[in-house]
Amino acid sequence: MRNFNFNNFTDIRFGTDQIEAHLHDVLASYGQNVLLVYGGGSIKKNGLYERVMHQLPDLNVFELGGIAPNPKVTSIEAGQKMTKAHNIDVILSIGGGSVIDASKLIASAHYYDGKPWDLVLNTKIRQTLKQLPVVDILTLAATGSEMNKNSVISNPETHQKLGTSGPNSPVVSFLDPTLTYSVSKWQTAAGSIDILSHLTEQYFDQAENTDVQDGMMEGLMRTVIKWAPVALNEPDNYDARANLMWSSTMALNGLVRTGKENGWTVHGIEHELSAYYDVTHGMGLGVLTPRWMRFALNAQTEAKFARYGRNVWHLVGSDVAVAQAAIQATYDWIKALQAPTTLTALGIESNENFAVMAQSAVTLKHLDKVAYVPMTSDDVVALYQASMTTVGFE
Amino acid sequence: MRNFNFNNFTDIRFGTDQIEAHLHDVLASYGQNVLLVYGGGSIKKNGLYERVMHQLPDLNVFELGGIAPNPKVTSIEAGQKMTKAHNIDVILSIGGGSVIDASKLIASAHYYDGKPWDLVLNTKIRQTLKQLPVVDILTLAATGSEMNKNSVISNPETHQKLGTSGPNSPVVSFLDPTLTYSVSKWQTAAGSIDILSHLTEQYFDQAENTDVQDGMMEGLMRTVIKWAPVALNEPDNYDARANLMWSSTMALNGLVRTGKENGWTVHGIEHELSAYYDVTHGMGLGVLTPRWMRFALNAQTEAKFARYGRNVWHLVGSDVAVAQAAIQATYDWIKALQAPTTLTALGIESNENFAVMAQSAVTLKHLDKVAYVPMTSDDVVALYQASMTTVGFE
Repeated sequence: MRNFNFNNFTDIRFGTDQIEAHLHDVLASYGQNVLLVYGGGSIKKNGLYERVMHQLPDLNVFELGGIAPNPKVTSIEAGQKMTKAHNIDVILSIGGGSVIDASKLIASAHYYDGKPWDLVLNTKIRQTLKQLPVVDILTLAATGSEMNKNSVISNPETHQKLGTSGPNSPVVSFLDPTLTYSVSKWQTAAGSIDILSHLTEQYFDQAENTDVQDGMMEGLMRTVIKWAPVALNEPDNYDARANLMWSSTMALNGLVRTGKENGWTVHGIEHELSAYYDVTHGMGLGVLTPRWMRFALNAQTEAKFARYGRNVWHLVGSDVAVAQAAIQATYDWIKALQAPTTLTALGIESNENFAVMAQSAVTLKHLDKVAYVPMTSDDVVALYQASMTTVGFE
Repeated sequence: MRNFNFNNFTDIRFGTDQIEAHLHDVLASYGQNVLLVYGGGSIKKNGLYERVMHQLPDLNVFELGGIAPNPKVTSIEAGQKMTKAHNIDVILSIGGGSVIDASKLIASAHYYDGKPWDLVLNTKIRQTLKQLPVVDILTLAATGSEMNKNSVISNPETHQKLGTSGPNSPVVSFLDPTLTYSVSKWQTAAGSIDILSHLTEQYFDQAENTDVQDGMMEGLMRTVIKWAPVALNEPDNYDARANLMWSSTMALNGLVRTGKENGWTVHGIEHELSAYYDVTHGMGLGVLTPRWMRFALNAQTEAKFARYGRNVWHLVGSDVAVAQAAIQATYDWIKALQAPTTLTALGIESNENFAVMAQSAVTLKHLDKVAYVPMTSDDVVALYQASMTTVGFE
């Protein structure tokens, strides 16, 4: 286990009716001027907007809607202008990871006079800035953004989709599982795959003897595997939505990465897909992950894949048999969620961009140096190529 | 899963050399006057005292040593006098759970003019008080006190040993596994049993569908079960000490209790042992826990005990067979740690106090109402009695 620092100052209000009990007082404790950030407007259709505004009659609420999945830097620029123009005291972010990611960067950009993209490219600048408090109401279980400092922001002009980390996580996060009852099967599946991927990215790691973290992750993986199909079949199943929501937060609030090396692989490779083709992030991960596992399974990693098979999938047998069966089980679980199983099914019909995407992933994420199993750009091209068909899995 | 609020503001510095890197600046950020609280003086023999003081040449350090295991309210009174007399800005607590427990209550008593025992008896008073910042250096993995708001304090005059919760957990906790290399086999075993007990107390619970929490706890239990024997045999094994230390913190920092009912049973019954006989807390738990499991196993709880057997002990078979085997495995693990397996072995030779102890446990902890399996005082007497011999386990 490696040395680490850990803290997480986000205050979680989990369950039903927390909005009515606490939202007003939480926001008012920071001031009168609120920037409400949200996405495509579903909150106005499903009643959440009314429910929230009903709590805030005495606050000055300014609105920034239209935050897109894979949020664009142009939205951050718009938010930056609004926070400065209206002397915003606190951001109320209602949505999934994209909306909260955007809100956290807007919270930093409020204290910066240049272009927000500077803060994405240069973390050092961002770390020196103050950050507006962000209060969020989560409506999609997936990214863990509600309890971490991270954002992923896209710049369509440069074909870049990059991570950035600010000084603070949200100050208070409202996690009401009933708000995810209306999440579509497609988004429920994508979110669940994203959660599993966050866990496998941290679980398969060069750091040894991290049983605390690996054991907690095995429990979280079993939870997602169990409850995602239930949520698909019974969208209003409270326990399914609650277990997905809380496991999503636990997977990426920093706890399970403590003492680990943290060289992620599949997310970097997937981010290129989203940047070039704007595919749903979780669905890209779902196609790539089983193929990446096949690539990563070797004599050195066999024992860890076997542990994954035994403790997560309850498989029995020799190390090599359990390891291989666990990879197949991962594929089968993703397929059973009615998720696309090939890049072709995601609408990517040609390999024309694979070489430049692979080179970008390797360069940005240092996949040839710090990954669990290092990858050259040729390896990544081969991974994209293998993801075009179901050969080997069907 | 039930509604819950969760936050934890403790900043963790885990690993080697964190004291040299950060201790001075952390303390100085709160002020110049430091109250150093410690236990029996082992830190002066093993070099830790010198190592710490070497970092603090410019701070005014006042010392309160002699905090006993099962810390006494008289120590809190002494600390209260010192913090007031010397205008203490921050408490530096070096030790295990007893020392940190005492420090947190002293931190509250600084802002109170009455007797500290008032604050134990009346949580409402304590919650309204400010609390001095507590910085700790943990030297024993067991109680989780380094990342929670709780203290357990004994009052020898009244034969009471009671829990109390303050407004804040320690602000910064230094967790250096090498500081536990010198912990004796006895204390290592007792601490490990305490960790396992914290997990079983929260795991066996009436709340249903808490897979996030139960899954994380299963991983933590496997971790303790794996590494405690290693630490006993190889006291300087870093990974053994690190996994015990971090699992200890995770078991009791509030995370795994989220969404659960939290009616603890065995701790309440053990606290009476410690109050009457001053036995080592973990060793009392080790004797009582397998007998409590036997008591609690019934048609309603069988499925949960079977889950415990499968996911923690990797047992296979029918629910009832796995459940019974898991209880035996728990006993065998405790015995293999060279811990006493009967109350007799702990020096308790007569049942003369069992009735009054049982009544006290039931009354204080409402064991007849909120426990996983409710217990009358007769049930508790029978549990104490069954703990006098190894009948049924050997």
